[in-house]
Amino acid sequence: MKEVSFSEAMRRKYPEWVVLITTVDENGKPDVMPAGWAMIASHQPPLFAISVGHGRYTHKLIRNQKEFVITFPSPGMEEAIEYTGSCSGRDVDKFKEFGLKALKAKEVKPPLLADCIVNLECKLEGELAAGDHTIFLGRVVAAHVDEDIHARLLNFSGKFAVAVTQ
Amino acid sequence: MKEVSFSEAMRRKYPEWVVLITTVDENGKPDVMPAGWAMIASHQPPLFAISVGHGRYTHKLIRNQKEFVITFPSPGMEEAIEYTGSCSGRDVDKFKEFGLKALKAKEVKPPLLADCIVNLECKLEGELAAGDHTIFLGRVVAAHVDEDIHARLLNFSGKFAVAVTQ
Repeated sequence: MKEVSFSEAMRRKYPEWVVLITTVDENGKPDVMPAGWAMIASHQPPLFAISVGHGRYTHKLIRNQKEFVITFPSPGMEEAIEYTGSCSGRDVDKFKEFGLKALKAKEVKPPLLADCIVNLECKLEGELAAGDHTIFLGRVVAAHVDEDIHARLLNFSGKFAVAVTQ
Repeated sequence: MKEVSFSEAMRRKYPEWVVLITTVDENGKPDVMPAGWAMIASHQPPLFAISVGHGRYTHKLIRNQKEFVITFPSPGMEEAIEYTGSCSGRDVDKFKEFGLKALKAKEVKPPLLADCIVNLECKLEGELAAGDHTIFLGRVVAAHVDEDIHARLLNFSGKFAVAVTQ
């Protein structure tokens, strides 16, 4: 066992989850970003946690609107992940520019994403300051699956791996 | 997209990370449990988050001692994960009973685990109530890797999958 820096140790973390987080601004315009730091946090009530960098537009929109949707992207969405992580919703309409297909959510304003294996509608339940990020805890108020999709994407150090989930 | 229960949607979550969390009691006796709900939370300072059920002995020991070690288990540790998840440190000395090999940590009292690809020494930085769990946020005060191990285990719905990390 050799002592190394945290960043060196974290080169061994892969594969890591990747989720896409949708949000809306005060006018209902949607935005979306990819995130790797995400986990389930509770069974009852159903809670899901994400860690979002302070500077991200998503951070501002979650604080302001207190709602977000967590999606598990599926094979074929590699470019959508790369694109939505390469620019900011402050500057561009990512849905329009990339042609992402939004679906109306049931309980929250941010949209679901078509072609994802899972969509979780979340209402902000709490938050925890975490260094250069904030952990946002969302209560899952509705959950959706695409019954025709059986695999999700994982982040493999910038590349994407396909994992069959069942 | 079909609406389902949260637990039904989460059948699509796999593969999920699995980490082993080591702790100590007030006498320095170590314990260890597996957890799937774990994520990095911050680059600077380096922070790592886990969600631990209220009833777990690990929950009590983290609250009391305010230290823990996060490890990424490697191929060959499948039975250690299953064993440490099947009983409580309240009843048994898991290290002794299973023959787990502990190594002295540098900055904290809970031990490192030999044969893991990564060991992260953590001091409790904060916590957030999360339904039937608590999110514990640890500051990583020392990180270690085993240079001879290049793969970690993932949880694949009760089975374990091997992922080569680099």
